[in-house]
Amino acid sequence: MQILPRSFAQLVGVVIVAGSFAGCAPVQTAPVPAPSGPAAAVPGSPVLAAPAYKPEFGTMWTFEAPPLEYWRTTYNFTPDQGWLDNVRLASVRLPNCSASFVSANGLVMTNHHCARQCIEESSSKDSNYIQTGFAAANLRDEKKCAGLYVDQLISIEPVTDRVRAAVTAATTGERATQRGEAIAGIQRQCETGSANTCQVVSLYQGGIYSLYRFKRYSDVRLVMAPEGDIAFFGGDPDNFTYPRYDLDLTLYRVYENDIPFKPANFLRWSARGPVENEPVFVVGNPGSTGRLNTVAQMEFLRDVQYPATLAGYTRQLDIYGQLTKGDTAAARRYQNDVFGISNSQKAVTGYRTGLVDSARAANKLAFETEFRQRINADPALRAKYGGTWDAVAAAQSQLATFNPTLRYHGFAGGSQLLTMAAQIVRIASETTKPNAQRLTPYRGQGLETIKAAVSRDRNIDTRYERLALAAQLRAAQSELPATDPYLGATLAGRTPEAAAAALVSGTTLANTAARRALIEGGAAAVAASTDPLIVLARAIDPLNRSVTAKADSLNAIIATNAEMIGQALFAAYGTALPPDATFTLRISDGLVKTYAYNGTIAPYKTTFFGLYERSAAFDNKDPFHLPQRWIARRDRLDLATGFNFVSTNDIIGGNSGSPVINRNAEVVGLAFDSNIEGVPNRFLFDATTGRTVSVHSAGMIEALRKIYDGGRIADELQGVTARR
Amino acid sequence: MQILPRSFAQLVGVVIVAGSFAGCAPVQTAPVPAPSGPAAAVPGSPVLAAPAYKPEFGTMWTFEAPPLEYWRTTYNFTPDQGWLDNVRLASVRLPNCSASFVSANGLVMTNHHCARQCIEESSSKDSNYIQTGFAAANLRDEKKCAGLYVDQLISIEPVTDRVRAAVTAATTGERATQRGEAIAGIQRQCETGSANTCQVVSLYQGGIYSLYRFKRYSDVRLVMAPEGDIAFFGGDPDNFTYPRYDLDLTLYRVYENDIPFKPANFLRWSARGPVENEPVFVVGNPGSTGRLNTVAQMEFLRDVQYPATLAGYTRQLDIYGQLTKGDTAAARRYQNDVFGISNSQKAVTGYRTGLVDSARAANKLAFETEFRQRINADPALRAKYGGTWDAVAAAQSQLATFNPTLRYHGFAGGSQLLTMAAQIVRIASETTKPNAQRLTPYRGQGLETIKAAVSRDRNIDTRYERLALAAQLRAAQSELPATDPYLGATLAGRTPEAAAAALVSGTTLANTAARRALIEGGAAAVAASTDPLIVLARAIDPLNRSVTAKADSLNAIIATNAEMIGQALFAAYGTALPPDATFTLRISDGLVKTYAYNGTIAPYKTTFFGLYERSAAFDNKDPFHLPQRWIARRDRLDLATGFNFVSTNDIIGGNSGSPVINRNAEVVGLAFDSNIEGVPNRFLFDATTGRTVSVHSAGMIEALRKIYDGGRIADELQGVTARR
Repeated sequence: MQILPRSFAQLVGVVIVAGSFAGCAPVQTAPVPAPSGPAAAVPGSPVLAAPAYKPEFGTMWTFEAPPLEYWRTTYNFTPDQGWLDNVRLASVRLPNCSASFVSANGLVMTNHHCARQCIEESSSKDSNYIQTGFAAANLRDEKKCAGLYVDQLISIEPVTDRVRAAVTAATTGERATQRGEAIAGIQRQCETGSANTCQVVSLYQGGIYSLYRFKRYSDVRLVMAPEGDIAFFGGDPDNFTYPRYDLDLTLYRVYENDIPFKPANFLRWSARGPVENEPVFVVGNPGSTGRLNTVAQMEFLRDVQYPATLAGYTRQLDIYGQLTKGDTAAARRYQNDVFGISNSQKAVTGYRTGLVDSARAANKLAFETEFRQRINADPALRAKYGGTWDAVAAAQSQLATFNPTLRYHGFAGGSQLLTMAAQIVRIASETTKPNAQRLTPYRGQGLETIKAAVSRDRNIDTRYERLALAAQLRAAQSELPATDPYLGATLAGRTPEAAAAALVSGTTLANTAARRALIEGGAAAVAASTDPLIVLARAIDPLNRSVTAKADSLNAIIATNAEMIGQALFAAYGTALPPDATFTLRISDGLVKTYAYNGTIAPYKTTFFGLYERSAAFDNKDPFHLPQRWIARRDRLDLATGFNFVSTNDIIGGNSGSPVINRNAEVVGLAFDSNIEGVPNRFLFDATTGRTVSVHSAGMIEALRKIYDGGRIADELQGVTARR
Repeated sequence: MQILPRSFAQLVGVVIVAGSFAGCAPVQTAPVPAPSGPAAAVPGSPVLAAPAYKPEFGTMWTFEAPPLEYWRTTYNFTPDQGWLDNVRLASVRLPNCSASFVSANGLVMTNHHCARQCIEESSSKDSNYIQTGFAAANLRDEKKCAGLYVDQLISIEPVTDRVRAAVTAATTGERATQRGEAIAGIQRQCETGSANTCQVVSLYQGGIYSLYRFKRYSDVRLVMAPEGDIAFFGGDPDNFTYPRYDLDLTLYRVYENDIPFKPANFLRWSARGPVENEPVFVVGNPGSTGRLNTVAQMEFLRDVQYPATLAGYTRQLDIYGQLTKGDTAAARRYQNDVFGISNSQKAVTGYRTGLVDSARAANKLAFETEFRQRINADPALRAKYGGTWDAVAAAQSQLATFNPTLRYHGFAGGSQLLTMAAQIVRIASETTKPNAQRLTPYRGQGLETIKAAVSRDRNIDTRYERLALAAQLRAAQSELPATDPYLGATLAGRTPEAAAAALVSGTTLANTAARRALIEGGAAAVAASTDPLIVLARAIDPLNRSVTAKADSLNAIIATNAEMIGQALFAAYGTALPPDATFTLRISDGLVKTYAYNGTIAPYKTTFFGLYERSAAFDNKDPFHLPQRWIARRDRLDLATGFNFVSTNDIIGGNSGSPVINRNAEVVGLAFDSNIEGVPNRFLFDATTGRTVSVHSAGMIEALRKIYDGGRIADELQGVTARR
């Protein structure tokens, strides 16, 4: 469940950005600021009686509506409110991940891949902690992570009625503005005169609004991080797979007033770790799921969007194949790029697998039919929501008709030089406009971010550029009608190979100074430029604006109706079905469980034996290379200690770093990924073979004690009175 | 590549036996006896110029026609005749497996699963060597395996012309008789006045006939066998899979005149074992492939035969599910049955996977089209072979029309009691007939074998019987027309459940004495019996005879034409394509190679670390239980030693025990299985992910020295002057 750029984040919002000059604006997940009110956890009420739980919606339950009856009947598990409050307050959110308090002195556990920035910034010119790992010998040695904070969800308050009351206008646009203002107002009011951070969370796409109040802890220090090679052992090939052998762990400590914070609520360490077939709970912040997508939306992804994305990966991999054929030095140089693309290919193939799977598709269709029948059976609901599915389907079919135009006129994929040329042309035109009239990626901070990205020094690989541009033009030629003006502008009668060669050899844009001069020269410099890529970008720009506007209006229809379907779901099913992920706190139940794989059985856990096996089986070659310390200290380890394990919990990007706890709220693991069979769960959840992959609690302790001289930290986690 | 009954052997000839009262006659693979002639290795000549190698035909090359040019261009490997002769003479055949001479003093290496009978028979009431393993401390301690022999292929002689010359008759039946007599005559002549064993081998289904002359060694003694739990570690779940951790090894020694035989040709031990990406060769006796099957035959298997077989497995597994639900004692009791059926299900699913795979199917169709074009382009070949494919296709479609009738009227699957009732009725009728007029399974030794099987004591599980019979009747009801006389006879207006309950509770056939009395009473006793199952079997018997006769005549058409297609293949392609497997000596080339699996990469080798990993990951539970000695002596081992490895060689049941050698003809491994991806290779070979799984040469030595106190044996294998 790597939420690094190239796996999950790359795919977020891919439909929306496909047609535009995509900038580099970070994904917006930060909570928005506002006022205060009484803490309570009461969801709104559905209009119709709630039916039984639907497994395909997964188990990302909110703390507003924990499924107490379902847990009781499924696991004979009946947590009281104290259990739920303790677990909620022990769990925290990082800017991009999940984490939890795991000691009386404020230790916070998360994944190594969530903490790379702090680990890198804590390093110095004499130390590279990504390479060597780091374990503070004492409190003084713990290193403050600049700018890092953790948010603790201290209360949840229903504000659905307040938001609804503010929305009185007739048009969709005005209603959206009113809604946004109401939400901002509630958040502002919540934060006024308080140190808290507040966020109005929209569940079921507007079915419920809840005010989440967070206590923010802003003094976070690095306590322990293993070497990158053991945290991400197996690298991109093993990413999204199991059996697995990763110590994807980082420990922070929260300080207040320069002394360790003593949280009232923290998770104690399990003495025995995960037991096969026991129920366990993952508590964290899943980022984004698409389970409420309509059949039409899923079909669009399956038949249009994902095939195009996958074809792009294939083109890129073909190019690397050409660049590295018979050249081992080049193969080494491009290895990380190839692994990265293969990894994205693995993820998207996985998402699509879930959509292609006929059993899952039939299940989805059956649900949508039932859902629509429930809505249509109630005249008021029918009047309000009855037409939404068809509206989405009509817009999706419209979008499908010009998808190749949208992609190629948008310069999607391929050449970095062409993309920068397009951005230079747009920086010139957008700078002069008022913010609200700019193209979306150039609004707010977007413009400056894109400027900075284009202006920075880059190492342009012209051989790659030429191949990439040629491949892009060949693909455009095969997908667009011969009369398409894009082909006229780019090829101008040449073959794709000849056009690419001429454009790449003729442009000066590989030179940073040339790019900066064009940006600084503004519209006049851009208009006067005879650089062949700038000339080309000027020609394509109006084509792109036209097709993007067309796509934007259709996507707006889809977004509006999708929101209504979310509200309809809540009206028809209440909280019997968990809402789509919102990067806010959820609790997912599941079982520690083996599964059928590779013609045999995948074990519920792995051990340190397996780590050494996988390294030895690949002759210790990268990415199966063990850090020196793990080689030297091998004999200290009890190799039969559990290292990773799997469970049927429902997680996705954003859940990285979530604690896995047993029914006593004790830590048995640390979630960090999904197996390959779990990747399709993005759209339709299925626990037959999909699994959450976690670091085993016993493995973390064993490594701390035997490999990292971290007895001080292990003692603290296990609640042992300090021995040193 | 377990050639144990339930994996491969069960499936051999499944089309032919499906409609008959299948007896228990062993698969006939023993060579047939006859005369002598000059040793030579010259294949016949094809009529048309031979085209390029077709990868889908695999690499089971004969020693008559080693693909020297293909090896040279593929691996830059150019063995001389001495290399080939040495390898051929160092390889030997066991009655059901492959093996090789691996020391100057006559050590023979094969798989543990090939040697179970000898290991069991060498045990005594005080020792169970399957459980404890066995390693002879010295020569005196080596234990003779009664009745066991190994056959060494000492010469190959072309006899195609002699066989052809003898076949002069006009009708198919008479020609077959003449051919059989000619072959028997050649074999007899070869064996007369010689100690050798001779076999005329039909390659390309009659395209070439070769006389194989074997030297037989009949004093074979058990030297070393590990515990069954380490030889078959992972049991049925891990069977047909990789990564794998099995010491599937047994060492014999051949004696002559009570002293160790000193073979002139034996394989030396490699000092470094298999190296990633190096070419390796598997030399052994593959039993049966179906690569020459026509598209129509493959479609029949894919659409009719295998789905029926798989439905039968599903029914059986459902029954075990009912018998064991919530009953852990029953679950333990039936565990081996469930594993066994799951294993067969795995194999058949794998075979069918290869047939369903659209890329492979397209490949097959393209080849058949090309093949037919080549034949049709030559008037003489066209006249002789042009009509064969359509004849096969017509017979297969005919067979498809009454397949359910053939299966259910034949009592296929399900109740043991009903099967025995049917056999009792047939023993009575067939005994009185001349051999040639009997139903096929009752000819020759068949009658006595079936009699013995029905007469022996059996532990009949009546709960299972009732469920199995009910399931069988339900399935018949769903597949046969309501008016089918079988349904009338079995159900007689009752529900399947009621009929099954009445039949099982009413019969006395669970009683051995009752069965023996009916057999001894002959036709009169059977005719007079009022046992409900005997009454039923009498009613079904004529239905079965009628449908079986119909199927037999269609299968005879298929067999005749298939033989002609084999001959056509040789005429069109010569020895450029290897012939289908014949349980005679072949040499297959391949590479030691990783492959894509489970979203990541399967390593080319495993190590002892992985063995301990898999055991620990399953908490040392059966079938991942380690023998005590392996637990106690773990620290003696260098755990990074290679244990198993994979290569792209082409093997199938019968190849078990084959040596894997490098280009220096040194042993780098011992083949024992295929991975799950390799199972579909039965029909169309594909080396993308299909792999041969072998024991690593270094792992065998390490285990002998550190676990089995077998330094004496390891020294002998490695050619070290004895140290003790």
